[in-house]
Amino acid sequence: MSKAALILFAHGARDPEWAEPMRRVSAALGRQAPELRVELAFLEFMRPSLRECAESLLGDGFERIVVLPMFIARGGHLKRDVPLLLDELRRRHPQVTFELAGAVGEAEAIVQAMAGHALTVAGV
Amino acid sequence: MSKAALILFAHGARDPEWAEPMRRVSAALGRQAPELRVELAFLEFMRPSLRECAESLLGDGFERIVVLPMFIARGGHLKRDVPLLLDELRRRHPQVTFELAGAVGEAEAIVQAMAGHALTVAGV
Repeated sequence: MSKAALILFAHGARDPEWAEPMRRVSAALGRQAPELRVELAFLEFMRPSLRECAESLLGDGFERIVVLPMFIARGGHLKRDVPLLLDELRRRHPQVTFELAGAVGEAEAIVQAMAGHALTVAGV
Repeated sequence: MSKAALILFAHGARDPEWAEPMRRVSAALGRQAPELRVELAFLEFMRPSLRECAESLLGDGFERIVVLPMFIARGGHLKRDVPLLLDELRRRHPQVTFELAGAVGEAEAIVQAMAGHALTVAGV
């Protein structure tokens, strides 16, 4: 398999602390899969952008880039804006494979984990 | 313990499909804890609002309401707007206990689940 990298792609916010859960996911991945290159990128307010992040990875020789949207659900950003960003990257870098995963909050494992956490906070 | 209800409180979006993961969490809770009353509420774009939802629960006799923010991280909405909404509810209904949990995406169980899902999508 070609050399792969993972981008945790989040919305971004004005508050710098907002990115903390994404940094914690990245740190957990660093412990569990130290061979996997993991980067954070943001749609708005924070840097790097998806394109900045992806082109930096291309500069490091990655040929397959998986983008995981760190969104609770799939709205207009993930249905329209992000596919357009990916299409632009594919046009600019046809030798590279870009894969866009679904919103993390829509994955069955995350739905189940959120339900389990909800039971904990409800005291059930 | 007094009669408790859980509100899954999400941002909301113009796209009606956006709420699907919240509905799936609610359905999972209905299977795992059918005795727990679970409702969805939204900050913007979707109904009911947090206040509409909470006051409907009060009408049904609930005396303890736990609000779980279905947000990936804690930014301005959760640091400022949502505590103000809760303060207003507490002033209007001093006989009721309102508990505001942290953003679901900041819970350690969810961070770990997101890391595990990230490994799956990266093919590691």
